Amino acid sequence: MQTTTLRVHTGTTEVVHDLTPQCAQFVGDAPADGLLQIFVPHATAGVAILEVGARSDDDLLAALEDLLPRDDRWLHRHGSAGHGRSHVMPAIIAPSMTVPVVAGQLLLGTWQSICLVDLNVDNPVREVHLSMMLSAG
Amino acid sequence: MQTTTLRVHTGTTEVVHDLTPQCAQFVGDAPADGLLQIFVPHATAGVAILEVGARSDDDLLAALEDLLPRDDRWLHRHGSAGHGRSHVMPAIIAPSMTVPVVAGQLLLGTWQSICLVDLNVDNPVREVHLSMMLSAG
Amino acid sequence: MQTTTLRVHTGTTEVVHDLTPQCAQFVGDAPADGLLQIFVPHATAGVAILEVGARSDDDLLAALEDLLPRDDRWLHRHGSAGHGRSHVMPAIIAPSMTVPVVAGQLLLGTWQSICLVDLNVDNPVREVHLSMMLSAG
Repeated sequence: MQTTTLRVHTGTTEVVHDLTPQCAQFVGDAPADGLLQIFVPHATAGVAILEVGARSDDDLLAALEDLLPRDDRWLHRHGSAGHGRSHVMPAIIAPSMTVPVVAGQLLLGTWQSICLVDLNVDNPVREVHLSMMLSAG
Repeated sequence: MQTTTLRVHTGTTEVVHDLTPQCAQFVGDAPADGLLQIFVPHATAGVAILEVGARSDDDLLAALEDLLPRDDRWLHRHGSAGHGRSHVMPAIIAPSMTVPVVAGQLLLGTWQSICLVDLNVDNPVREVHLSMMLSAG
Repeated sequence: MQTTTLRVHTGTTEVVHDLTPQCAQFVGDAPADGLLQIFVPHATAGVAILEVGARSDDDLLAALEDLLPRDDRWLHRHGSAGHGRSHVMPAIIAPSMTVPVVAGQLLLGTWQSICLVDLNVDNPVREVHLSMMLSAG
């Protein structure tokens, strides 16, 4: 299994960060079939597949603000205000995502991008593990 | 890796569409161990595993109506009214799902079905990629 | 593919149950690279990766109480009060999770734990399938 680790600069605001170019480059190195596994080793980030460039990324952050409000309800109280909600988010937007690969090409649809969703404003750099799993058959 | 693409008629209403029969047939073609990867190449659909036939599918669509309201809050404004919410849904119900397979049988529980969740009312036909990944060991 | 089935005592309350020790032991049996697939064959449970021990598990259960209220809105009416919401939960917290493994070690971050999320109060024992998928390359 080929594995690499990206370092992504997410800054100090909530972001939806497009990882598709790096993912496409990684799986394109060999024209193989298999599964690309994207995994974020952080407890306050997740991976989502959505359209970017048409405001759905902003819509997602607004929806998360509504679903997991940035108030004082959270029992987890380390870090910045609202940090508690960032720790619940990965239960909804998991830190793990699988995308099939055929002949070195991601089977993404036209409007799909693989995105890091990071609500954490205290850690400006995040890691993302990419693993290419080859099928035996 | 064996891959096939289903074409699913979802019509012009929101649907939870059971894909289990096609998935079972696909993995049953060879009595192998591995992972079935279900992937929807659309930005307004997802894959969920839930019970069907006891109204939980209707409950899910109602819950999504509540969690992602069909109003004018969404910045993404192409398509029908409410289309913006459909573009946020895949962050919550991802377009990718993995189910283990042993000896050509899906390891689903008695009450689990693999379902396409499609809020998009403008595209009556959707594609679903099925991939069977064989383990090397 | 190596597969084992855990039996987890979740009792008669809603729980976030840490599976990380059993997962680490399972993949550590062979110093191989691949993917660990965690799959819960129940229609009212899911798998999430989050921090445990700092109240985020309680925060998650409270958030689910808010997102999927324990009232009489649900059309699925078998079992205890609120059982209908338990059947919608796996659409949001899926029963399937994949974690990459390198040299027999889970690529989890420091604050990440693999957790069974079980809202079902009627079934005190739950099964969890663990499968280790080895890459051909």
